[in-house]
Amino acid sequence: MSTPIKALVWGEFRHEKKNPKVAAIYPQGMHETIAGFLRKEPDLQVSTAWLDQPEHGLTKEALASTDVLLWWGHMAHGDVADEVVERVRRRVLEGMGLIVLHSGHYAKIFKALMGTTCSLKWRESTDKERIWNVAPHHPITAGIGDYFEIPAEEMYGEPFGIPTPDELIFISWFTGGEVFRSGATWQRGSGRVFYFRPGHETYPTYHQAQVQRVIANAVRWARPTVCIPDNCPNSAPLEPLPADAEAADRPTEGHR
Amino acid sequence: MSTPIKALVWGEFRHEKKNPKVAAIYPQGMHETIAGFLRKEPDLQVSTAWLDQPEHGLTKEALASTDVLLWWGHMAHGDVADEVVERVRRRVLEGMGLIVLHSGHYAKIFKALMGTTCSLKWRESTDKERIWNVAPHHPITAGIGDYFEIPAEEMYGEPFGIPTPDELIFISWFTGGEVFRSGATWQRGSGRVFYFRPGHETYPTYHQAQVQRVIANAVRWARPTVCIPDNCPNSAPLEPLPADAEAADRPTEGHR
Amino acid sequence: MSTPIKALVWGEFRHEKKNPKVAAIYPQGMHETIAGFLRKEPDLQVSTAWLDQPEHGLTKEALASTDVLLWWGHMAHGDVADEVVERVRRRVLEGMGLIVLHSGHYAKIFKALMGTTCSLKWRESTDKERIWNVAPHHPITAGIGDYFEIPAEEMYGEPFGIPTPDELIFISWFTGGEVFRSGATWQRGSGRVFYFRPGHETYPTYHQAQVQRVIANAVRWARPTVCIPDNCPNSAPLEPLPADAEAADRPTEGHR
Amino acid sequence: MSTPIKALVWGEFRHEKKNPKVAAIYPQGMHETIAGFLRKEPDLQVSTAWLDQPEHGLTKEALASTDVLLWWGHMAHGDVADEVVERVRRRVLEGMGLIVLHSGHYAKIFKALMGTTCSLKWRESTDKERIWNVAPHHPITAGIGDYFEIPAEEMYGEPFGIPTPDELIFISWFTGGEVFRSGATWQRGSGRVFYFRPGHETYPTYHQAQVQRVIANAVRWARPTVCIPDNCPNSAPLEPLPADAEAADRPTEGHR
Repeated sequence: MSTPIKALVWGEFRHEKKNPKVAAIYPQGMHETIAGFLRKEPDLQVSTAWLDQPEHGLTKEALASTDVLLWWGHMAHGDVADEVVERVRRRVLEGMGLIVLHSGHYAKIFKALMGTTCSLKWRESTDKERIWNVAPHHPITAGIGDYFEIPAEEMYGEPFGIPTPDELIFISWFTGGEVFRSGATWQRGSGRVFYFRPGHETYPTYHQAQVQRVIANAVRWARPTVCIPDNCPNSAPLEPLPADAEAADRPTEGHR
Repeated sequence: MSTPIKALVWGEFRHEKKNPKVAAIYPQGMHETIAGFLRKEPDLQVSTAWLDQPEHGLTKEALASTDVLLWWGHMAHGDVADEVVERVRRRVLEGMGLIVLHSGHYAKIFKALMGTTCSLKWRESTDKERIWNVAPHHPITAGIGDYFEIPAEEMYGEPFGIPTPDELIFISWFTGGEVFRSGATWQRGSGRVFYFRPGHETYPTYHQAQVQRVIANAVRWARPTVCIPDNCPNSAPLEPLPADAEAADRPTEGHR
Repeated sequence: MSTPIKALVWGEFRHEKKNPKVAAIYPQGMHETIAGFLRKEPDLQVSTAWLDQPEHGLTKEALASTDVLLWWGHMAHGDVADEVVERVRRRVLEGMGLIVLHSGHYAKIFKALMGTTCSLKWRESTDKERIWNVAPHHPITAGIGDYFEIPAEEMYGEPFGIPTPDELIFISWFTGGEVFRSGATWQRGSGRVFYFRPGHETYPTYHQAQVQRVIANAVRWARPTVCIPDNCPNSAPLEPLPADAEAADRPTEGHR
Repeated sequence: MSTPIKALVWGEFRHEKKNPKVAAIYPQGMHETIAGFLRKEPDLQVSTAWLDQPEHGLTKEALASTDVLLWWGHMAHGDVADEVVERVRRRVLEGMGLIVLHSGHYAKIFKALMGTTCSLKWRESTDKERIWNVAPHHPITAGIGDYFEIPAEEMYGEPFGIPTPDELIFISWFTGGEVFRSGATWQRGSGRVFYFRPGHETYPTYHQAQVQRVIANAVRWARPTVCIPDNCPNSAPLEPLPADAEAADRPTEGHR
């Protein structure tokens, strides 16, 4: 446990440039705020990347040296290159952890890993969000207690178009009368995926201690223990088979 | 239960034209053999489609009037148009059932719904496959008993790169020493997905009674009960919210 | 589908005799109210049983002719004989459906099938409950829509001490700020189990149309398709084994 | 991670006294062999207990200072006192890890936590068992590779009467033609449960390196991170409720 966990925080970093309200809350960008609180954790080594960098900052090399990728995107999901999405997906299936934040529910990478619509109800207003811990045994909820509150947040409501999570971690209560599965995990290949709902750009959510704690816990939880590249091998038998009169004609190459 | 279930059997239909061995086993094509035994079931109304038809026979209209789609593909997964794959995926998420057969584990549509590699071990040889029923209570295994055997089949071996199934239905034993999760189900959106392993083109698998029985059972199991198009609505609150000084500036359109 | 589904509604039937408030709402007993609305469904054949009958009305014969058992108990869980609980459990594992209502979360039979604490938060007050449908594709939610409300109900809050459900069907929002997994399913052996939260004895919940609809839907969903008695057989090999010098000394009887 | 994990190996320890064949393989008892290889792991602190000790060696104090309990039992499941089973169950639900070995599938504690029959097929003969790793990303399979073989073992065959595992780890292939879910995990309350198939008393299975490795991995995986005692609290509202005219009559004590 002595080598640090390499976390890469990816931000869309566009709202901050266009909307003064967002810039006031996150002057260096949301990704820098997230990276900032993670950098206080001694076992994490944190870098950042964003949409308008070459290859969105997600080069093969950058991903190869990433243990856990955190993803915040919203207005520009469509601007993320399909080739980069596929590269990230491959790394998750090999073992890299992925933490998808808030509006990232509609990010190409999340939809690609879930296979479903990932749709939901939403409302930007004055709702309070109370996030209930339904998995008090889980490492992601360490130190969180029974629930915590975010004074004002965008509402997300059910039904949420996801496959049944492996583990349901949080359920949110909203003032306006809705509920939402706000924290959930899925194993995808050798990689662990965690979706965490809070974090609309017009609220100071990522400055809140409990939100920071959940995200730091999740980075540790999502740390890979293996890296297993995809393959689909032709395999020799381990037990004797009957003689094969047609052996010479059998394909030994290629599932496509 | 009186309106028939509309099943559409989709076949790649290329091996049959190129390989006389396959043509000898499936003279009208594998899809016609599968459609043929399904047509004997009085509650099913069966049609077929194949790769080299316009839009692969999977037009919007064809899919709109399909309850359950069966998919057999192998050598030409790459020739299936992405646009058609997306159309099928949308129909599954709305409610259409999908049964993926054998080498369809690598079909674009299956990979898109699973989000994972869908890779496996394989060997074309003289293995006997014994398929164990691990879900004797499940409608898909009705009439199947403890196990059944296929005298010769291609081997598929673990690990199989799928998300944890909602229900594991069959596990295969192979002469050469391997095992495989040969039948498994997943809910994806409002649609039911069943993967069923047997059916390599060079063996007469789809002429075997138990294989036919499983597939007919699965069609009934996968029948949709709803059709729910995707949406992601801005939703008004159901309980009173505090006054919203910024209401006029809030977006009410568009999660992308 | 022409033979009727035999539903047996089991009620504790004690509150109704002790508490005039409960008797005013459910003059014939809660079980009779539940049986009453189910009897309006032409495909159901409904009977009732209660705690103070011999063997609690759950004789071997009664259970053998029951397809789906509904269970409401609260103050007298401890008075249910362990032998009867074990008999019910065996029938569920063989295939009988079980619908556990409200305070039945602490019934011996539910705890025995779950293996967990089944504990929760609670408050009897003036909360409104809004029950969100998180599985709009599921037969149990047919006709229910996005959500429904119960004007006043006991609050149950998370964490709920259950194993991860196979399917999460409903999540409740309460005025007082809590959330709860209000509808959930589990396969146990060959039997289907559905837990449904609403129904505290001092509120007229079982007179409400949507609650009645959910319960009727659940009875149909839980209908058994098989009856598989428990066994643990010594099994002869299906493939040749090496010679067994110790064959005569091998036990062929008895896993205990 | 510097405090050691306290593992307690529980053995029935009766076969070893009655059957010279077993005594020859496990002269100090099976539990001592298992404890022996675990003691070589520097991060584990290992003790043992057995059936014929007072309270089966599972006193309140012993359990309170146990992180992970390993359980091997076979012929004498019925001799384990129900009170002790309940005590162990409570500790698992609070957070203690539990590893159930081989014939422990029929132990009272395993059946109590699963809620199902836990039945299976079996045959004591000359089968080779090949154990396939279907979860190569999982900490329990670290260092195990694609598969490993046990030269001779008792056969266990499907269907195995368990609830769908949270994670399926191993599937076994047997010479005689059967398959079995040989490694599986379940979260139960705050505790992690792992079932691992191999280990019949008349074969030297627990002397085999890969079996030892899996068990040591599992002890680390099952280590608790919390201890959460059961409770079912009456909870005050977190948001304003309408006035409650009947407040004085409301119960505030006791879900039973």
